[in-house]
Amino acid sequence: MPTLVLIRHGQSAWNLENRFTGWWDVDVTEKGAAEAKAAGELMAAKGLDFDQCFASVQLRAIKTLNIALEAMGRLWLPVEKDWRLNERHYGGLTGLDKAETAAKHGADQVLIWRRSFDIPPPPLAPGGEYDLSKDRRYAGIAIPNTESLKDTIARVLPYWESRIAPELRAGKRVLISAHGNSLRALVKHLSGIPDDEITSLEIPTGQPIVYELDDELKAVDRYYLSER
Amino acid sequence: MPTLVLIRHGQSAWNLENRFTGWWDVDVTEKGAAEAKAAGELMAAKGLDFDQCFASVQLRAIKTLNIALEAMGRLWLPVEKDWRLNERHYGGLTGLDKAETAAKHGADQVLIWRRSFDIPPPPLAPGGEYDLSKDRRYAGIAIPNTESLKDTIARVLPYWESRIAPELRAGKRVLISAHGNSLRALVKHLSGIPDDEITSLEIPTGQPIVYELDDELKAVDRYYLSER
Repeated sequence: MPTLVLIRHGQSAWNLENRFTGWWDVDVTEKGAAEAKAAGELMAAKGLDFDQCFASVQLRAIKTLNIALEAMGRLWLPVEKDWRLNERHYGGLTGLDKAETAAKHGADQVLIWRRSFDIPPPPLAPGGEYDLSKDRRYAGIAIPNTESLKDTIARVLPYWESRIAPELRAGKRVLISAHGNSLRALVKHLSGIPDDEITSLEIPTGQPIVYELDDELKAVDRYYLSER
Repeated sequence: MPTLVLIRHGQSAWNLENRFTGWWDVDVTEKGAAEAKAAGELMAAKGLDFDQCFASVQLRAIKTLNIALEAMGRLWLPVEKDWRLNERHYGGLTGLDKAETAAKHGADQVLIWRRSFDIPPPPLAPGGEYDLSKDRRYAGIAIPNTESLKDTIARVLPYWESRIAPELRAGKRVLISAHGNSLRALVKHLSGIPDDEITSLEIPTGQPIVYELDDELKAVDRYYLSER
């Protein structure tokens, strides 16, 4: 039976400050690093092991993976990093905290952007502090300037199909370290969660989510490893 | 002009204790981690950048690479890890410190093993503390039970030719994080150093060694980045 474990990066500095982060590259906090280490220790203690790992190209996901793998004695495992596992791009909200966003756009509008499936926030203005168009890591990629969850799913799933699913079908045990919304995209797909429910599904930081999959890669079971 | 930088892992616990390490998986010390960070900061300050990284499958080389890449803001770069970049396997000397080895085998014999090009130390006894035959990372690999430098070169160079050289020929800038003897293998090849000289060439820990290569991947220049 194919094994798949998803892990959202440990707490980041902007998780803590309640700021929209998206594609901006924010480090994990000490607590986030401790969450990652505990996740690795838990996976090792429960006898989980992997053959192939995937991560976004964002610091907080890669560090979470590295810390967890080191705790498992598995830092030598192959890791593929790809922007299509990045967090949802929060457009013009990037860098704003909850209070600033509400003051600027109104609390009702913010709730719509946070919770709607297909309404993206306003686009990120080019040339500003959070403009990533000159970041080497995204050279040759049509960087979005904002994304809805639907948009995020539209780039996560082709990557799932082309790179991750084939590893699982080949019998590889897979660990993915990514973000709240790129993981929502996978959970929606694997567990068949409707559009209007997926936006409110919380993915906690640093908690390994185990999928037991059938041969068609549909979910037989999904659980937090800490609860078994 | 292809760019290649070699870095030997930062100081490990057994470098400090003067014990033969070889394939045994010893962590970097605090000093070793600081060396790795300083190496990354130096590479960034000197304007070096990379497209593809390589490391052995050993903890000290992977951590050195990760720490250096993070210091450069380049943790997102692709990294390929392969056992053929591992340290020379020290066979039955693994785990012994200098005094223990001299007491057991005689100082003259130890010098021969350390410095000869093609005389391997006695083989590692199977089933002992340092036996890696059950380590998942080496599944499917004919693990050596001892290696001379010549033996080490014989598995490093095919990997260089098949995986690293093609990246350089394609114009990629390459960073390799590895070990004293796997890097000696590369330096011998690239700089054309004779058998009887290569064994005494010291490769300091955590010091980026820059190669300027011609289109045939032969060395035009080789220097420590800290000296330019």
